[in-house]
Amino acid sequence: MAITIRPAVAADVPQILDFIRALATYEREPDAVTATEEDLLRDGFGPNPFYFCLIAETEGAPAGFAFYFFNYSTWLGRPGLYLEDLFVYPEFRGLGIGKALLQRVAAIAVEKGCPRMQWEVLDWNTPAIEFYRAMGAEFMDEWRNVRVSGTALQRLAGSGENRT
Amino acid sequence: MAITIRPAVAADVPQILDFIRALATYEREPDAVTATEEDLLRDGFGPNPFYFCLIAETEGAPAGFAFYFFNYSTWLGRPGLYLEDLFVYPEFRGLGIGKALLQRVAAIAVEKGCPRMQWEVLDWNTPAIEFYRAMGAEFMDEWRNVRVSGTALQRLAGSGENRT
Repeated sequence: MAITIRPAVAADVPQILDFIRALATYEREPDAVTATEEDLLRDGFGPNPFYFCLIAETEGAPAGFAFYFFNYSTWLGRPGLYLEDLFVYPEFRGLGIGKALLQRVAAIAVEKGCPRMQWEVLDWNTPAIEFYRAMGAEFMDEWRNVRVSGTALQRLAGSGENRT
Repeated sequence: MAITIRPAVAADVPQILDFIRALATYEREPDAVTATEEDLLRDGFGPNPFYFCLIAETEGAPAGFAFYFFNYSTWLGRPGLYLEDLFVYPEFRGLGIGKALLQRVAAIAVEKGCPRMQWEVLDWNTPAIEFYRAMGAEFMDEWRNVRVSGTALQRLAGSGENRT
């Protein structure tokens, strides 16, 4: 079955949102997606996009996507590629689509001069972990991910407001 | 002691590199920094910067810095703020400079409409972990950090080159 990978265009936004929702369901957070088509259109397809997206198709049918943007390595003095989402619909798994997407993203990283690409995986997602390991990935387990959001972020932002 | 926090300008690049090297030494990787002043100038102070930086000073002396850029939440449909580095020179610790920098970064996140800010911490860095917890941070320990770099990235990029 032929796999085609192409950059997403603005008309793909409804499809991108479907991929995002399907991935959230797989990650056991089906209600976590509040993003709208308007959000994705505004942030991905303006003059200075916050993100980029690839769509994988098999015989014209959308099968998977990769969603990425650029971070920065202070040690290397170069932008890196950050892969936010990589997803293939369940009915299209086992055809090499995930691998093809990952390879294409890696090729973009190399083309853009990024010395590395990074992403995250849920610790219970054994098939993905084994797949990434087979692709040459390292697991940076000494680094813990930290987040401040919602009211905690508002409080932190507000608590320094009288500072020069 | 008065703490002043200001956005970095191009003339701060040598100072930014000194902060980056001092942080790498603290993180037990003193030889990992290959970034040059040219790299930081090109990537942070052009028309579409890859990163942003705040400098903290006490009585005119550089004391600490925060280095950040924007990522993207597919669930929320909004950019988020990613804090790559937060560092205070050892001789300036205990004065509230780290907290002031974190508060300023949080205020920038709120101002830019980011629903969250994120960063990473080394699992042995107990003082930092306790500090972040006190600031309202959550630890996303179910997410493992994955990376492909160097020859593994080249190999992954090259292995898909004949794919349509």
